[in-house]
Amino acid sequence: MARTAGSDGGRTEAAIRDAAVLLIARHGYEAVTMRQLAAEVGVQAAALYRYFPTKEDLLRTLMREHMEALLGTWESARPDNDDPVARLTAFVANHIRFHVERRHSTHVSNMELRSLSRDNLTGILKLRTAYEKELRTILRDGAEAGVLEVDDTGLTAMAIIQMITGVIVWFRPDERLSVDEVTATYLAMTMRLTGAKTNTEHSHVRQDAELRAR
Amino acid sequence: MARTAGSDGGRTEAAIRDAAVLLIARHGYEAVTMRQLAAEVGVQAAALYRYFPTKEDLLRTLMREHMEALLGTWESARPDNDDPVARLTAFVANHIRFHVERRHSTHVSNMELRSLSRDNLTGILKLRTAYEKELRTILRDGAEAGVLEVDDTGLTAMAIIQMITGVIVWFRPDERLSVDEVTATYLAMTMRLTGAKTNTEHSHVRQDAELRAR
Repeated sequence: MARTAGSDGGRTEAAIRDAAVLLIARHGYEAVTMRQLAAEVGVQAAALYRYFPTKEDLLRTLMREHMEALLGTWESARPDNDDPVARLTAFVANHIRFHVERRHSTHVSNMELRSLSRDNLTGILKLRTAYEKELRTILRDGAEAGVLEVDDTGLTAMAIIQMITGVIVWFRPDERLSVDEVTATYLAMTMRLTGAKTNTEHSHVRQDAELRAR
Repeated sequence: MARTAGSDGGRTEAAIRDAAVLLIARHGYEAVTMRQLAAEVGVQAAALYRYFPTKEDLLRTLMREHMEALLGTWESARPDNDDPVARLTAFVANHIRFHVERRHSTHVSNMELRSLSRDNLTGILKLRTAYEKELRTILRDGAEAGVLEVDDTGLTAMAIIQMITGVIVWFRPDERLSVDEVTATYLAMTMRLTGAKTNTEHSHVRQDAELRAR
């Protein structure tokens, strides 16, 4: 059965994006040329420009899709209940799983903000702020409900995000710990950092993560 | 009075290093050329090569000096007493102060490990390991003395370092918080994260930081 042009195009675009993430993570955005990327994908440079008219269009697409995917996984992982500790648990677990699976894409997203022009930067920063706001809301709700101790919501949110994103700097899935084990340890640290008061329900959530980790 | 050639040379070398840190932090190591760097400093490219025979010599020097300076400030800041909580307090305060003062150099050091050849990478990683070991020792001593609660020394050390290095991502000294205020908040989070048991002496140390922050 003949493939539609659309699906071929989709495959080519995905191949371009995948190769671009690896090349940029390895060499830095400025050092990578569209010619080099085309050679890596095995297409003519002209084909590349059909999908991404400029190199910055490509970078903006990579960074936007990274953040949209992160917000999307959180949308799915967010628990139905209102309990702040359960939401914090789900947030940390989702964040770690997402980032260890997209290490190169995370490096590109964090390092190459410097390479975006002002308009594109503004768009990406909006998505980052929306994501950080999710965590700030959890922390604020937890403090108001008296189940979390948070001195400064903004600083605590940044501290947690930096701490749990940092997993990708040293974690490799084939080493001594599984993602679930790492997540269980980082969850325990997050709960201590935020002075989380656990009741039976919360310990169930964490026990689940710890059991999966075994 | 005539300047000695040595001091002129020292000034030129320092100017090269300063300009290189800024250029690499902005554009990435691979994208920066020795010609571009020479123009920035206002010297001939040939003069550059007298100080740094290859571009990688320059990068290795920047990264080695960054780590040696960090180890040096910690050597001076390390308290004379053996108390793990006092040592942890000093470690966090020194780490944050060092990194907010050398934001660009920190970005280069963390991002451009990818650009070092194997031998140079090994040398830099040794210095990083030596520094991380200082924190692991504090955490282990604290756990053994029963004043810190640490599940996994290695993971906790990495979590703390990532969390407190992350300050440079968002902190600008002219904004709503001073370095001392940020340090006081991050110290409080670190102490909670490590379940620090404070006695009178420890609270004095933290109160000092909190007072300075006012």
